[in-house]
Amino acid sequence: MTLIEKICRQISEVDPNVSIRVQHRLNQKTKPLRSLGRLEDLACEISSIRGLENPALPQKVIVVMAGDHGVVEEGVSAYPQEVTCQMVLNFAKGGAAINVLARQVGAKVVVVDMGMASPLPTLETILSRRIGSGTRNFTLGPAMTREQALSAIEIGIQLVQQLHDEGTTLIGLGEMGIGNTTSSSALLSALLEITPEEVTGYGTGIDSTTYARKIDAIKRAIELNAPNATDPIDVLTKLGGFEIAGLVGVAIGCAAKKIPIVMDGFISSVAALLAVRIEPKVNDYLIASHRSVEIGHGVILKLLKKKPLFELDMRLGEGTGAALAMGWIDASLRILEEMATFESAGVNNAGPKMQEKTS
Amino acid sequence: MTLIEKICRQISEVDPNVSIRVQHRLNQKTKPLRSLGRLEDLACEISSIRGLENPALPQKVIVVMAGDHGVVEEGVSAYPQEVTCQMVLNFAKGGAAINVLARQVGAKVVVVDMGMASPLPTLETILSRRIGSGTRNFTLGPAMTREQALSAIEIGIQLVQQLHDEGTTLIGLGEMGIGNTTSSSALLSALLEITPEEVTGYGTGIDSTTYARKIDAIKRAIELNAPNATDPIDVLTKLGGFEIAGLVGVAIGCAAKKIPIVMDGFISSVAALLAVRIEPKVNDYLIASHRSVEIGHGVILKLLKKKPLFELDMRLGEGTGAALAMGWIDASLRILEEMATFESAGVNNAGPKMQEKTS
Repeated sequence: MTLIEKICRQISEVDPNVSIRVQHRLNQKTKPLRSLGRLEDLACEISSIRGLENPALPQKVIVVMAGDHGVVEEGVSAYPQEVTCQMVLNFAKGGAAINVLARQVGAKVVVVDMGMASPLPTLETILSRRIGSGTRNFTLGPAMTREQALSAIEIGIQLVQQLHDEGTTLIGLGEMGIGNTTSSSALLSALLEITPEEVTGYGTGIDSTTYARKIDAIKRAIELNAPNATDPIDVLTKLGGFEIAGLVGVAIGCAAKKIPIVMDGFISSVAALLAVRIEPKVNDYLIASHRSVEIGHGVILKLLKKKPLFELDMRLGEGTGAALAMGWIDASLRILEEMATFESAGVNNAGPKMQEKTS
Repeated sequence: MTLIEKICRQISEVDPNVSIRVQHRLNQKTKPLRSLGRLEDLACEISSIRGLENPALPQKVIVVMAGDHGVVEEGVSAYPQEVTCQMVLNFAKGGAAINVLARQVGAKVVVVDMGMASPLPTLETILSRRIGSGTRNFTLGPAMTREQALSAIEIGIQLVQQLHDEGTTLIGLGEMGIGNTTSSSALLSALLEITPEEVTGYGTGIDSTTYARKIDAIKRAIELNAPNATDPIDVLTKLGGFEIAGLVGVAIGCAAKKIPIVMDGFISSVAALLAVRIEPKVNDYLIASHRSVEIGHGVILKLLKKKPLFELDMRLGEGTGAALAMGWIDASLRILEEMATFESAGVNNAGPKMQEKTS
C-alpha cells in the first residue's frame, strides 16, 4: 500500500453531531437565534472538522507552494518565468501580499519550492522539496511522470504531518507559479470533460491575443496527452504543476489529521478538487474562502457545493483569500468561546425559539 | 446658527486626487494590477476620506447607542423592552457579540445610553446622555419633540469631537434598542414615501402575526403624524428613536472631522441616510460593511450607491458587521504600507500596464 492510499484510509467522515451541539451552544448566547448567520455556520464547521465542541483558537499556517511550468514557452502568461523565483524571494523577505495578510491574522507562512526553474540558494525561510526544475511543456508531452506526481503529493502529506506535530490546527492553501492558471484550466477542463473556454480566465491580466494562445495551448495539450478523466493522478501527471500536486497532498494530509483546509482562489481549489477526486471524504474538510474573478473558480465551488464566504474581486492567489477568511474563522470561534449566555448575563430570553437542529 | 448647521458647513467634499495617488502607489506593489480588487478600493476610500496618502492604521471605535421605543406597546417585537437595558449591561461587562468582535479587531466599544426606559446605575463603561426615558409610542403621537431630536443629534456630534480629540480615526455605528427595526422601517417608509411592506423585515425573528402588527403600527404612525418627507428632522422627530438620532449626529460629526464612518446593518444605515438627507456630503464619508437580511437595508445601500463588502446573513446589529469590516480596513491599509514594490523587491514588472486612474 502506498503512503497516499494509507493516508486516505485514515480519513474519516466528519461527525454531524458535533455541529448540532455547537449550534445548540451558540443558541444560548446573548443574541437572537441565528442572527450571526454564516459566522455561526463557520464555528459549527470548524468544530465538526476538528471533532471538538470547544476548539481552541487555531494555530494557523498558510502553505505557499511554488513551481514553474514548461507551458510558459507557449506565451500564455503576462509575466516572465523568472517572476516565480523573484516572488518566492519576496515571500522569504516578508514583502508580498500574503505576508502582510497572514501577519494580520497571526498565521505563519510556510513557503515550499516544489520545483522552480532554477534552485534558490538555501534559505532558512524556504523549504526545498524540488521535484524537478519546472514541469515539461505539456503541449509537447506529459507535464511530469506519474512517479513525480505521486512524490509531490507525498511531500504535501508529509509536510502536513510535520506541521500537525508542531501544533498547527488550521491550514490555508497558497501557491505561486507563472503559468499555473493555464495548468489549472487544463486540469479542470480535462477532469470535467468540458471546453477550455468554460474554465479559462485572464490570469494575472493577459490580453486577448495571449488568451487565445492560452486556450489553444490547453486544447493541444489535452488532445496530445489524452488524460483519463476518471484517473485524477493521470490528469495531474499530464497537465499539472509540481506546486498543484503538492497542494493535493496538503489537502489529503489535512483531512487525515482533522485539520480544516481553507481554499484560496482558482489554483488551490483545483488542487482541492483533485484531492476530492482521489478521496471524496476530503470534501468535508474544505472551507471556501472567497470566489475569485477566474471563471473556473466558480465552476469548482459549485461542483464541491461550497458557498464562498466573500467576493472581493480578488485574483492574486498566494493564499491571500484564505488569510482573510482565517480572520473570520477566529471571529467565529471567539463568539463560541467568549460570548455570554442569556443565563450568565441575566438577559431575558423571551425571543423566538427554534427546533434544535442546524439550519 | 445651530451647532448642527455649523458642523455641516465644516464638511468638505472628499478630494478624488488622493484616491488616484493611492491607487498609483498600490500599482507599484508586487502583485498584478488591481489583483486585490475591492481591498485596493478600500485603501483608496479610507485614504481619501482621511485626506492622507499614508494613513496610519486607524484608531478604531464602535459607538453603540441605546434607546427604548414606546411603540413596543403595540406588540411589534419578539423581546420585552427590559432586554435593551440587560443587553447594555452585557456590553458593559464585555459579553456581547460586539465586545467579542471589537476585541478581535482592536476596536474600543463606546456604549451610550441615549434614553432607555429606566436609567442605569452609573457605570464607568457607559456614557449617560439620556434624552428621555424611551420615546413615546408613535402610533399615538410624535416619538419625540423636535428639540429632543436636535439635542440627540448634537450629542452625537459632540461625542465624535471628543473621540477625535482622543485620537480616534475610524468609527463604526452600532445600536441597541428593542423595537428599533420598527422605528427604522417607519423612518425609511416615510422618507422614501414607499409602503412599509417594502422596507420592513422580521427584525430579531418575529412571527407572521407580530409582523402584521408591525406593519399596521407603522401605517397608523405615518397616517397620524404625517411626517414631511422633505424635512429629515421632522421625520426623525415623529418616527425615530433617541439612539437613531444620536447616530445621525455621529455620522455628521465624523464627516466634519474626516473620520470614515462604517455603517453596520439596517438601523445604523437608516441613521446614515438621515444624516445624508440633512447634509448630502456626508455620503462621501460612509463605508458599507455588510448587507443584513433586513430587506430595508438593501434599499438604503442602493439609494446611497454603496456596495456592501460582504453578506453573511447577519441581522444582529450592535455594530457587529462594522467590526468585521474594520479588520478588512486594517488589512487594506497594511497592504498599502507594508507590501514591497516591484523595485524594492527586485521583481520584474513586465506585466500588464494600466492607465493611471482609479477603476
